[in-house]
Amino acid sequence: MARGLVRTLRIRTRRKHGNLGLLTSALGDAGATIGEILTIKFGHSFTVRDFNLILDDEEHLRSVLAAVEGLTDSEIVEVINQVQAVHEGGKVRMQSRVPLESLTAMQSALSPGVAEIVDLIDKEPALAERYTAIQRTVAIVSDGSGLRGVGRVRSQAVLPVLEAKAALLASRAGLNALPICLDVASEDDFIRAVKALRPSCGAILLDAMAGGRAVRICRRLHEELDIPVFHDDADSPAVAGLAAALNACRRTGKDLSRVTIGQIGLGTAGGAIAELLMRYTGNPVLGEDVNPAGVSRHVALGGKGAHLEEIMGTCDVVIANTGHSDVIPPGLVREGQAILALSEPRPEIEPYDATLAGAAFAADGRALNKSVVLPGILLGALAVKARAITDEMKIAAALSLADAADEGDLLPTPLEVTIHAEVACAVARAALKGGVGTISDRALLRPEAFLELISDDRLLPL
Amino acid sequence: MARGLVRTLRIRTRRKHGNLGLLTSALGDAGATIGEILTIKFGHSFTVRDFNLILDDEEHLRSVLAAVEGLTDSEIVEVINQVQAVHEGGKVRMQSRVPLESLTAMQSALSPGVAEIVDLIDKEPALAERYTAIQRTVAIVSDGSGLRGVGRVRSQAVLPVLEAKAALLASRAGLNALPICLDVASEDDFIRAVKALRPSCGAILLDAMAGGRAVRICRRLHEELDIPVFHDDADSPAVAGLAAALNACRRTGKDLSRVTIGQIGLGTAGGAIAELLMRYTGNPVLGEDVNPAGVSRHVALGGKGAHLEEIMGTCDVVIANTGHSDVIPPGLVREGQAILALSEPRPEIEPYDATLAGAAFAADGRALNKSVVLPGILLGALAVKARAITDEMKIAAALSLADAADEGDLLPTPLEVTIHAEVACAVARAALKGGVGTISDRALLRPEAFLELISDDRLLPL
Repeated sequence: MARGLVRTLRIRTRRKHGNLGLLTSALGDAGATIGEILTIKFGHSFTVRDFNLILDDEEHLRSVLAAVEGLTDSEIVEVINQVQAVHEGGKVRMQSRVPLESLTAMQSALSPGVAEIVDLIDKEPALAERYTAIQRTVAIVSDGSGLRGVGRVRSQAVLPVLEAKAALLASRAGLNALPICLDVASEDDFIRAVKALRPSCGAILLDAMAGGRAVRICRRLHEELDIPVFHDDADSPAVAGLAAALNACRRTGKDLSRVTIGQIGLGTAGGAIAELLMRYTGNPVLGEDVNPAGVSRHVALGGKGAHLEEIMGTCDVVIANTGHSDVIPPGLVREGQAILALSEPRPEIEPYDATLAGAAFAADGRALNKSVVLPGILLGALAVKARAITDEMKIAAALSLADAADEGDLLPTPLEVTIHAEVACAVARAALKGGVGTISDRALLRPEAFLELISDDRLLPL
Repeated sequence: MARGLVRTLRIRTRRKHGNLGLLTSALGDAGATIGEILTIKFGHSFTVRDFNLILDDEEHLRSVLAAVEGLTDSEIVEVINQVQAVHEGGKVRMQSRVPLESLTAMQSALSPGVAEIVDLIDKEPALAERYTAIQRTVAIVSDGSGLRGVGRVRSQAVLPVLEAKAALLASRAGLNALPICLDVASEDDFIRAVKALRPSCGAILLDAMAGGRAVRICRRLHEELDIPVFHDDADSPAVAGLAAALNACRRTGKDLSRVTIGQIGLGTAGGAIAELLMRYTGNPVLGEDVNPAGVSRHVALGGKGAHLEEIMGTCDVVIANTGHSDVIPPGLVREGQAILALSEPRPEIEPYDATLAGAAFAADGRALNKSVVLPGILLGALAVKARAITDEMKIAAALSLADAADEGDLLPTPLEVTIHAEVACAVARAALKGGVGTISDRALLRPEAFLELISDDRLLPL
């Protein structure tokens, strides 16, 4: 999760040819990322428009406001913070899928009918997949120990993030996600608490946890649980990064498996990207980090340590996840290089500057909406009852995302449900191929079948 | 949860005056409880109807089928088991409450907008009540150690029961319930796992746990947590039992606080009923159980031990929760007695037999749908952020239920949402009166306000 402010500026502009251009230029020059623009009113001599902006912080907002105030023909009517209203009352709610409008319906769904279902599952545990929501249920778990861009927060303060992921999984993959923040101290306690939840879900999603802690916990849960454990802060950037690198190479006419790749920043996200790139290409990635532990881990996984200058001087594809802006001086950019500078809210090098300095292709983190990874990969894994989410399944997701991106884009947008169905299908196929999943009828492994699952309100076992 | 089979018999009957009467008599004589009757087809010479029945078990079903087959003019077309279809795919699903249909909407709800909300809550924890679903979230927790009428099951086998409760809370109280079955061994592990869940919810509901274990766990959670812990297998029968006893007294022209009360069966439900009756009346209840531990606990709580004969011979109101049928011989019934024989599927004494033997009022468990207790009591407690659910709150719920029952009934039906709003309002008022809750504006303490909360899709703090 990136840091940044979302605000809407309601601006009144004198109706005069060229004034909208002056206004949007002023906003852009002040560093605001402009999203939707809504026209609220065409008046006799003024037009009122809402500009949805992404800004760095409150100070950035002030400088943007000052920039607008410097214009002769535009004035700010209101600064609207729509974010709080979106979150009020929480972002998810559990709903009944069964009718409870008559006593007979209640007798079937509750007492005494449910006792019969309990018996069935008690005698044949696999029937839980059929007679409960378990095969579409994901426990989204965090202790608030490390929110990306924020750091440690009280465990309950992380709940809005878990609810956001639950809303995403519900609306894009028809999944049933339980937002669970845990009040635990040690890693052992965390692992114990998650393992205790095992009978309640078909997959575990770890989110907003401190890097090293999360990686260790994730590894142990992989070993000790028989259901998929997905680490959103590592696995989602890895899949998105691989997909973006694949497309960056396609745009520059290169083959990702034959180029030299560098990774600047080997934290949770950067380390995971480098690892998946090495699994996909079979070649070492040159890695750099201010923290020697990150470099050692990278080397242990088959990577090579290198300095920034070395990476910029030798690599065809460079990916940066340092958490800092302006880490890459334009003077180091090599002619023809592809650069993905992914830190937010500001990249390690502005794509425009990188291209000006000779890069064949450059993009920042805003062009990579990582939300497109999660829904499909979890849906695909759950649909085939995968025991784990393997590197092969992540690679399949990345390939499917890379193929689905529009010409010129690195990743598809998460807005369309079809993309999640495609990713789910690719992931499910990879799970079966790798022998980590089961399915009763392979003929159901079509994106259309997954689309039905998503929109059908239920995730019946395939 | 009572044991029993729910089945629908599709029966074809020759169209002849009196044949439906013969058929329903045969079903009733065979001991089937008849629910809805649907007419499927009026044919030329035959009528086809669906009879929704509650039966004891498969053997009972066979004897009912034999009874119908013994009729000249009726034949069974099909035995329909609608129960499994109701449970397929699970009974609840999490849904997004926020729009995620544009990138701007996603930026507000997910990244980067959510970081601002995390900050707010991290700095002022009470804001979690406003910006997350926590104040309408209930964790429904079980280890499967004791399903009423079934006993211990694998923890996952209890999930359909937890989902049923979640569906009930969603549809009747607008609550967001997380069905969580825990895989834990010791009571300490269970308590640790539930306490770890604390930041994720506003209340805990314990369900389907072994009696003594649940009572001990519940007591410790009461002491160690600052949110309500409701024990469905004890607290719901207690509230329903008190409401029913109040109405049974009204029907027989007596004052519950001035009569002698007996409780036969002091297990989880029976013990809790006796305890709440003593809290309400201030008088000891005469209690009997085959298990001496149950009697000791009852005496420790202010009750008196007594034999069945003594209870039947001296008490004006007798409540039985033994789990066994025909425990009370009609010969022991005292003239003018009120008897609630609550074991299911068969009562300790059939109401008809009790009345015949001289009882002024008699009812069985089927007349007491305990599902009417849970939604309102949890909604009321959550709405005023109650630290606990006190006896006073349970008594307030019982009084409100007793008042809302139709003339001649012991409890209202759970089908109407209005009753849950009324119970919630009574419980919230009792919490405030007892100093265990807070509310910003007392003027909102009206049933209509709770009805709005239920139907409004959100439980904003009052």
